[in-house]
Amino acid sequence: MSLELRVVLVEPMYQGNVGSVARAMKNFGQTDLVLVNPCKLEGQARAMSSHARDVLEGARKVHTLKEAVEGANLTIGTTGASSKKNGEHVRLPLYTPPDIKEKLKGYSGKIALLFGREDNGFRNDELKSFDMLVTIPTSDVYPIMNLSHAVAVLLYELSELEGGKTPLAEDFDLHLLYEHMDKFLEEIEYPPHKKEKTRLMLRRIYGRAGLTPREVQTLRGLLRKGERKLRSSEEESSFLSEN
Amino acid sequence: MSLELRVVLVEPMYQGNVGSVARAMKNFGQTDLVLVNPCKLEGQARAMSSHARDVLEGARKVHTLKEAVEGANLTIGTTGASSKKNGEHVRLPLYTPPDIKEKLKGYSGKIALLFGREDNGFRNDELKSFDMLVTIPTSDVYPIMNLSHAVAVLLYELSELEGGKTPLAEDFDLHLLYEHMDKFLEEIEYPPHKKEKTRLMLRRIYGRAGLTPREVQTLRGLLRKGERKLRSSEEESSFLSEN
Repeated sequence: MSLELRVVLVEPMYQGNVGSVARAMKNFGQTDLVLVNPCKLEGQARAMSSHARDVLEGARKVHTLKEAVEGANLTIGTTGASSKKNGEHVRLPLYTPPDIKEKLKGYSGKIALLFGREDNGFRNDELKSFDMLVTIPTSDVYPIMNLSHAVAVLLYELSELEGGKTPLAEDFDLHLLYEHMDKFLEEIEYPPHKKEKTRLMLRRIYGRAGLTPREVQTLRGLLRKGERKLRSSEEESSFLSEN
Repeated sequence: MSLELRVVLVEPMYQGNVGSVARAMKNFGQTDLVLVNPCKLEGQARAMSSHARDVLEGARKVHTLKEAVEGANLTIGTTGASSKKNGEHVRLPLYTPPDIKEKLKGYSGKIALLFGREDNGFRNDELKSFDMLVTIPTSDVYPIMNLSHAVAVLLYELSELEGGKTPLAEDFDLHLLYEHMDKFLEEIEYPPHKKEKTRLMLRRIYGRAGLTPREVQTLRGLLRKGERKLRSSEEESSFLSEN
């Protein structure tokens, strides 16, 4: 069991950058590259990948963000310091690379690191779909890093990680937990106009926390206990009202 | 007094790399670039420098290493992992970037960071002339980093920029949340023999997630809603049993 990284480039525009990213990945021992609707990859991409042509040519190409993160236990979106306001807007805390490193310590699983378009980064709806956001501290004077530089810096910070013994919960179990939470919100008659926001917030909190299988089970047990208590009170009341 | 960095590129061969280095420097708040016998710097260098054309055009061009380090209090040469043998050969310890950061803590002065040729790095006589050597930990499979990536990673590690600064929930509010959770466990009659472990687990999960003030409020609201529903069911049942 270990920590595995996947690099996801969303709609990269310059093939030289994609090649450079492949090279940085191989430098840091990474090979899992996924490209969402990339630009054409021809001679310049290969030239910039240098001896990482295998990583470049082994890249999986997909059409949606959803396909790109399939099988990942945790998604971490990168965003420029200039998007600090976005971070606030989507109400996700902005971590630094060392923060992320600290949070991942001791974890096992597949982590998707996502990088946005060279010109506009991620849209807000994309940012909202990630478990965590990371930003590389840069100068306010010129905060926009080259795409491959951002990848190199993040992999430099995170590749040192040694796989720990704590396995991350499977996607499947996490979804059961989330569905269970949704059901619970129904049962406690949570105000409908707040429900959607709260559902998203719960997903983000638990996504960020990187739950272990045991923690997922305990949380579901807790929900079940709450539901049972609720139902027994309701049954009692309905039994009494009928008799 | 503070720590000032100078980036010295020794005989860089590709103008795109020089432009990219200028960009990485500006991203990390650095402007002092010295080029020893560089290649021609034309359109591609300017293109890759992007909004750091001022750094590129302000670079000082010299003919010798000696001129390049003039005025520096300390010289740090970078060398690839493949040059580890060189490092041994010249009898200088090979530091990692965090080692260097640690060593420079509290120092003031001008530090020259030197980067060698894209193909052959530094000659031994050059390596011997440096005060320290630093190497970026890379994969043995493909240790040779792109020049501008190496600059980006080192400046990332050494530039004293702070990032992120997420507004985290106050301890006080977190404690209120935890107390509220404890109370909720009571109310749903959570099995006493499991309670202590679950309490701890909940604290760990939420501690790890690094909750924002808003998230704490939403979670408390959710608990309140659950309690209210529970109580109304119970009151109903007690009302009905009394009547």
